[in-house]
Amino acid sequence: MSAGMVRLSPASLHRSLQEPVLGSIGFLNEVMSRHPDAISFAPGAPHPAFLDDLDTGHCTDRFLDHLVERGRTRRQARRLLVEYGPSRGIINELVSHALRRDQDIAVTPESVVITVGAQEAMLLVLRALFRSASEQVLAVANPCFVGITGAAHMLDIPLLPVSETRDGIDVEALEAACRNARRSGRHLRACYVAADFSNPGGGRMALECRHRLLELAEREDFLVLEDNAYGFTAAGGDELPPLKALDGGRRVVHIGTFAKVCFPGARVGYVVADQQVGDGSRLLADDLAALKTMVTVNTSPLSQAVIGGMLIEHGGSLRELSRHKSQLYRRNLDRLLTALDFHLPDGRAAGIHWNRPEGGFFVRLHLPVPADDDLLEKSAAKYGVLWTPMAPFYLDGSGDRQLRLSCSYLDPEQIDTGMRRLAAFLQKEIIR
Amino acid sequence: MSAGMVRLSPASLHRSLQEPVLGSIGFLNEVMSRHPDAISFAPGAPHPAFLDDLDTGHCTDRFLDHLVERGRTRRQARRLLVEYGPSRGIINELVSHALRRDQDIAVTPESVVITVGAQEAMLLVLRALFRSASEQVLAVANPCFVGITGAAHMLDIPLLPVSETRDGIDVEALEAACRNARRSGRHLRACYVAADFSNPGGGRMALECRHRLLELAEREDFLVLEDNAYGFTAAGGDELPPLKALDGGRRVVHIGTFAKVCFPGARVGYVVADQQVGDGSRLLADDLAALKTMVTVNTSPLSQAVIGGMLIEHGGSLRELSRHKSQLYRRNLDRLLTALDFHLPDGRAAGIHWNRPEGGFFVRLHLPVPADDDLLEKSAAKYGVLWTPMAPFYLDGSGDRQLRLSCSYLDPEQIDTGMRRLAAFLQKEIIR
Repeated sequence: MSAGMVRLSPASLHRSLQEPVLGSIGFLNEVMSRHPDAISFAPGAPHPAFLDDLDTGHCTDRFLDHLVERGRTRRQARRLLVEYGPSRGIINELVSHALRRDQDIAVTPESVVITVGAQEAMLLVLRALFRSASEQVLAVANPCFVGITGAAHMLDIPLLPVSETRDGIDVEALEAACRNARRSGRHLRACYVAADFSNPGGGRMALECRHRLLELAEREDFLVLEDNAYGFTAAGGDELPPLKALDGGRRVVHIGTFAKVCFPGARVGYVVADQQVGDGSRLLADDLAALKTMVTVNTSPLSQAVIGGMLIEHGGSLRELSRHKSQLYRRNLDRLLTALDFHLPDGRAAGIHWNRPEGGFFVRLHLPVPADDDLLEKSAAKYGVLWTPMAPFYLDGSGDRQLRLSCSYLDPEQIDTGMRRLAAFLQKEIIR
Repeated sequence: MSAGMVRLSPASLHRSLQEPVLGSIGFLNEVMSRHPDAISFAPGAPHPAFLDDLDTGHCTDRFLDHLVERGRTRRQARRLLVEYGPSRGIINELVSHALRRDQDIAVTPESVVITVGAQEAMLLVLRALFRSASEQVLAVANPCFVGITGAAHMLDIPLLPVSETRDGIDVEALEAACRNARRSGRHLRACYVAADFSNPGGGRMALECRHRLLELAEREDFLVLEDNAYGFTAAGGDELPPLKALDGGRRVVHIGTFAKVCFPGARVGYVVADQQVGDGSRLLADDLAALKTMVTVNTSPLSQAVIGGMLIEHGGSLRELSRHKSQLYRRNLDRLLTALDFHLPDGRAAGIHWNRPEGGFFVRLHLPVPADDDLLEKSAAKYGVLWTPMAPFYLDGSGDRQLRLSCSYLDPEQIDTGMRRLAAFLQKEIIR
């Protein structure tokens, strides 16, 4: 290294780079790479079986046909997929149609922005809504998905953790938080909620809680950011309406992703933002599309075409698209919970217990000892089983005695084997 | 509309949404849509001829073969394209190889992060490097590409405009700006430079200026953000080394895009950030990859595969990939300048003059009157020719009497016709 070579001090970089969660993710990835034969309950990724059958070329062709049926020449259609495109997206009509049809979310294509996954949607919404770091706060459930807290850190937006019960975010605690914020001269500008099987909490808001949340948003003048990544895992007939479907006052900004119901590699998500801005000549979606030109310009039309084609293949229905997947994930979740019951009958007496979510990808396990990196290392090296420490999901330093188990990426036999290993680990190292 | 429906005040949204440039882009798009038959010198998009021959499926297959040759099974290779992937990217090796081979940029794959276009790279680099809005400033050439100023506005980063000559950013003016910033208690943290045929200025830094800029960066302790979108348009034998190739002190963060040399719809760009952070156990690229998990998680591997395949098809060489394109753009630029000379021989006497860049996509035309939205509307409606007002590219309110002409998207015949129309417009409305 030459004498004049620059060396950047970590303290000179943005403070979001010092968030402990980045170190935790790094360590988890590193443990996984050192123990490739361990069974991992860490990834929240979709099951690979759905990916092997995927014919992205065929999906693209279906979307091209769709464009041609709607009046474009084939050459125009093909160009649309490879040129720059509108920052709001090219499959907005298909998405709004599917939301209306399957989730009773009545929304026009103009209120939809297609994003590079749900993550970009979160960043755009936070950036648009938060103007002043000293006066506005974002409420989040505690524990909380690291995607939204990460985006908030990146934009220096202060967070207000609100406890989550099995019925989702605690609306009474949120109401108290609003009052406290007001007393300290700050305004609760928005509240991030995953109403259906949150990651990692597993909570699901009861219908009555959903209505109370919307009433509170009206009364306290905040917006609700609804993340609906896992709603599709509800059993048929057991679905609850998304907050956006109950949203008479347009208080809800609805964020979705195709990573779980289609495939993650597309990097396609969406945001519904039908809030009127100013005199009503534009929608919040217009502002999000404008901000998007400063982040990614537009979402790859190639990727959008594959997702559009998949929707068309399933009659334009998200529900049809996800039906088989939803079944597989519920079967896996069942298998995981059954294995926990079977292998750890004496768990509770030893201070080990877990929640029983009715959907989603995740189960939370409470230990009587810290579920930290040392314990993870031992679990991986000696027992061949991996999981995610929960502490990084908590904003208040609690949760260090919890771990997260994901059921999405594994086959039933792997779940059984992995649970046997996990039980052996817990029996020998903790229960004794 | 129900009484309780939310209405967001524009003043309550982030101030980047009030940037006049957003209104200008909106107006330009709107004029273009109202005058579909007008010849437009506005878009800086690549020529469509290169897009019609594009076989993205074939390119993807080439990349899959490449992965299989390197030891993956075909199933593993296919999964890599549809699953989540590393946030730093999957074509880093191909990109670093090409940069080393074609541009003498000696860089490891670990220093490269693949991004959703150059735009995301700019946002990530600014976020990592800027910690405090009150103490740090970003210097940019004036006029300046709106992608970097937009990203800075989004992150509330103060900008310091520095004049640009035909030799690119004025290094002496930059030195004075450093001193002024220091005197007012602020530090010039970084300087954004498009050394090769800037958009919209058209400047190109002489070799000697490049060295002086790097010496200044060393002396004043700032980083140089080099945007190399248009370097490929230099004539063979006339290329100058990118700043990054001259960068002994690792002062340069190098940003590139495949939008122009491959195709925009892929939304694939890259950033080279080999700066050591802290004790040297990590690079700035590692921090950018960590930040990327909060913006887009990862760049679509489907898109990366198409770009990777295109590189492989051309022997892993960016230069081979762009040779024909470079020729077309120089031919178009020549045609445009020749037409200006031919049609406006009395231009200078009437206060109309223009620059003569040796590459890039853009020519700047100076008028004796404001080149504003009203004039654009007249040009489109009465003469069927469109262009881009330059005022939004200036940070200091100047430049309102300039317009930008892009040669990239048109055929030679369209350039001729368009220039005849533009000349008629200028002769009748301005020279008279």
